[in-house]
Amino acid sequence: MEKVFGGWQKQPNRLNIQGEIEKAIGEITGEEIELIASGRTDSGVHSLGQTANFKTNNENIPIEKFPIAINSKLKKSIVIKSAEEVTQKFHSRYSVKSKKYRYIVNNSSMGTAIYRDLEYHFPIKLDENKMSEAIKYFEGEHDFSGFKASGTSSKSSVRTIYKAEVLKKENDRIYIELTGNGFLYNMVRIIAGTMIEVGIGKIKPCEIPEIIESKDRKRARKNFATIWTIFS
Amino acid sequence: MEKVFGGWQKQPNRLNIQGEIEKAIGEITGEEIELIASGRTDSGVHSLGQTANFKTNNENIPIEKFPIAINSKLKKSIVIKSAEEVTQKFHSRYSVKSKKYRYIVNNSSMGTAIYRDLEYHFPIKLDENKMSEAIKYFEGEHDFSGFKASGTSSKSSVRTIYKAEVLKKENDRIYIELTGNGFLYNMVRIIAGTMIEVGIGKIKPCEIPEIIESKDRKRARKNFATIWTIFS
Repeated sequence: MEKVFGGWQKQPNRLNIQGEIEKAIGEITGEEIELIASGRTDSGVHSLGQTANFKTNNENIPIEKFPIAINSKLKKSIVIKSAEEVTQKFHSRYSVKSKKYRYIVNNSSMGTAIYRDLEYHFPIKLDENKMSEAIKYFEGEHDFSGFKASGTSSKSSVRTIYKAEVLKKENDRIYIELTGNGFLYNMVRIIAGTMIEVGIGKIKPCEIPEIIESKDRKRARKNFATIWTIFS
Repeated sequence: MEKVFGGWQKQPNRLNIQGEIEKAIGEITGEEIELIASGRTDSGVHSLGQTANFKTNNENIPIEKFPIAINSKLKKSIVIKSAEEVTQKFHSRYSVKSKKYRYIVNNSSMGTAIYRDLEYHFPIKLDENKMSEAIKYFEGEHDFSGFKASGTSSKSSVRTIYKAEVLKKENDRIYIELTGNGFLYNMVRIIAGTMIEVGIGKIKPCEIPEIIESKDRKRARKNFATIWTIFS
């Protein structure tokens, strides 16, 4: 079994996705390349469709052969799904049109052993109708100052959420899904935690607009104090 | 990260499910107990609903508290979902009414990193209609001599399959599902491998009855030679 990744971003003493892929591409092209990802996922976040770009002068390997070539050099915990040539202007982070995040809550009494690293087990019965009602208030353009981790360096806290949904799935799973043009540091997990508080009745759906508008990190902190434990 | 289990059955030098749960129950009841499972799953098989019974003289812990108590002593890779009192006659293995096995084939070109231990990646496009047609021939009572690993000690090779299905799922997944009164050693994986050979056109659906009836392990071996590589 392999060690857990410390997230996407390159860091000296911890296994990371960026470093592993850069090394693999380097072995193939013989160049020192730099990978730019659409989002620098934290440790514990699993990507189903991360996009990353790099520049290469290599002309020996046809572009469609890159995934197989890179995968042959990678650990099995990282898989390149496809590759295509893009214009020089393309930049994975700045060219992003939308990003989608999914939080999986296992709402069964005991959770599972098999999927334990892929979902959050919360044994108290959640009211997904209330959660569905509440999450709709996050859609649109808002200043999400109250929903970011302290110490965030982003210039603006304004983000647009195109779609926000709570989906009831088989086997007591609840998916919390957010699609937007970008997310602040820890914003998704703070919203997911808020949804859980709505699900247990601690926050009413109608209170959400007021919480967003307050832009008050302290207020958010107070309301969402448990989140950090939940998702740490 | 934890080491991989060597299967259900107790064995001296390898992590196993039975041993871990017996130890956890022992810590709670103070007794040396023996767990009887409905099926002794091999290494690499994940159970969603294994049933196991044990005898105890313990009267201090109410039965409904057992799962939480046992889980508190277990690694996170094993979860007890529920517990109930049964009659002295109940025997997990002999009282079984039916068992259901699922083989998940990931038929995408590159597979996934995240679910790699839970599914078999087969990149060549499979014809699931042919597979669906072929698997129906396994339903009913048959002598499955041609579908068991050599060296199997079972007295009879006759088993009844109540339901056999190939299901097309999202994201290029194909589920091969078999429900029956029991399965011979390696029988499920040999049938799954046969289905893959049907899916790539190497075996025609109409050939299945003849292959089953031949009861010829050598013939099966010849046809299903790749299975051992596939599922090893």
